[in-house]
Amino acid sequence: MQYRPKPRIEQPWISVFAGDHGVVAEGVSAFPQAVTQQMLANFVDGGAAIAVLARAAGARLEVVDTGTLAPAPLPGVLWAKAGDGSANFTREPAISEGQLEHCLDLGRASVRRALACGCDLFIGGEMGIGNSTAAAAVACALLGLPGRQLAGPGTGLDAAGVDHKAAVIDRGLALHGFGSEAPAPEAALRCLGGFEIAALTGAYLACAQAGLPALVDGFITTAAALAACRMNPGVRDWLLFAHASAEPGHARLLAALAARPLLHLEMRLGEASGAAAALPLLRLACALHGEMATFAEAGVSRGN
Amino acid sequence: MQYRPKPRIEQPWISVFAGDHGVVAEGVSAFPQAVTQQMLANFVDGGAAIAVLARAAGARLEVVDTGTLAPAPLPGVLWAKAGDGSANFTREPAISEGQLEHCLDLGRASVRRALACGCDLFIGGEMGIGNSTAAAAVACALLGLPGRQLAGPGTGLDAAGVDHKAAVIDRGLALHGFGSEAPAPEAALRCLGGFEIAALTGAYLACAQAGLPALVDGFITTAAALAACRMNPGVRDWLLFAHASAEPGHARLLAALAARPLLHLEMRLGEASGAAAALPLLRLACALHGEMATFAEAGVSRGN
Repeated sequence: MQYRPKPRIEQPWISVFAGDHGVVAEGVSAFPQAVTQQMLANFVDGGAAIAVLARAAGARLEVVDTGTLAPAPLPGVLWAKAGDGSANFTREPAISEGQLEHCLDLGRASVRRALACGCDLFIGGEMGIGNSTAAAAVACALLGLPGRQLAGPGTGLDAAGVDHKAAVIDRGLALHGFGSEAPAPEAALRCLGGFEIAALTGAYLACAQAGLPALVDGFITTAAALAACRMNPGVRDWLLFAHASAEPGHARLLAALAARPLLHLEMRLGEASGAAAALPLLRLACALHGEMATFAEAGVSRGN
Repeated sequence: MQYRPKPRIEQPWISVFAGDHGVVAEGVSAFPQAVTQQMLANFVDGGAAIAVLARAAGARLEVVDTGTLAPAPLPGVLWAKAGDGSANFTREPAISEGQLEHCLDLGRASVRRALACGCDLFIGGEMGIGNSTAAAAVACALLGLPGRQLAGPGTGLDAAGVDHKAAVIDRGLALHGFGSEAPAPEAALRCLGGFEIAALTGAYLACAQAGLPALVDGFITTAAALAACRMNPGVRDWLLFAHASAEPGHARLLAALAARPLLHLEMRLGEASGAAAALPLLRLACALHGEMATFAEAGVSRGN
């Protein structure tokens, strides 16, 4: 993938895209919407999981506000809002065509910055209260599935909350006319997605176009990766999959992408935390590939 | 485990114990016995997997010859042979009482050296053509199982080879009178084990006695850990488990120890390679524990 005989990861780059979601008005999240902005501050202050993991990995971390409800720029966060949160997809398309283009471009721009800094592995992450609902809805549309197949507890819904979330997704699928036929991925992103999900899709497309390997994180990023692969099947070859999360629908998305993730630790945080946790394994694989002696070099006898 | 509010792993230590096995005469390995010595040279020359992984981890690596067929000391290898390989357990006890004491002491001595160097996580590894047979035999004796339950391909036996290996183990179990009752672990180690397996058992016992966490590697080390836990059940609290290997019997040993390993990567190399691959995850867990802000510290709203 890196076009060099000894692959290595010297400059991993992490872009965390944040956005808010109109569908939160339907009561699909266990946490209040204000948490999206609060966590942005925690990312740049260094106290969030991904901030700790990025430091440990020696990775560059950028945080992009693709469209939260934050009223003003936050120091250290790239201010690039497509709007004040997406619209409620049970009433209207979540994002407009112009917003979709804006967000796909945000993802592409992150990959350009990463490459300009010598990035040899791209990691995308996300933050957005309600985005497991939007990601599940997009994936249901792409895979022709009802909401209950991909709705999960997200940040911590109980069983009744998950049932309600599935019903909300089904209302969105019905309103926008998604059935069992695979729709245009752009339509799924626009009608049901979110700003940060679209930015991730744009980032994966750009990674593949640039020949840059991308390490996919959890449920929401995998939904964005699925959309990217539907827009351009060649994207799949550039994706590595970090972990199988505790979100029940993740296994289904991974299967749809024929992905075998590296870790199975029941993580469920997002933020790119699962990808950052898997990064050392990729580095060790590179070290083994580049530094081990062959049996012939080491003078070790062959099998019988 | 470390008696400090913020756990950390600054000085991991890896001891790889090597030994040869008389039971190889029964045709239980796909590789010739000379490979044990050849791999010792590869460990100290830096070309073996564990040498690469130890460098990447910043871990101290020592290699202890507990009883290979090597006729003379190898530079860089600690020469502490209990004998020229163990005896063939299908004909006589694999190791004598004196050799067992010697090998348990070798493991204890490694832990003492590790502690003297400030070690805060101990990793044991092994090398020895035939040792998956010896380890399976010890574990069969301890768990009251027939050979077919724990015999596996090891370095690459085919199905007929695995059947033969199981029969060899059954002959050993019968000769030494092991049945469905759990025997004294010392007897299992002595009659069926091997020098490096006994050294690992001694090391795990010493770790627990010193209050030093030990990260257990694969199939052979888990069998040694099982013996240590049978000798002193308090050992279990000091063991962490790195990975579930591709060796089919490993899952059974892990279950017997109520262990949930960190990685599931179908590794099957031994040498402590699986433990070294899991080490970064433990370090990241320490970083998250020590450096993350609480929701209260970060001003993040609680769930609804």
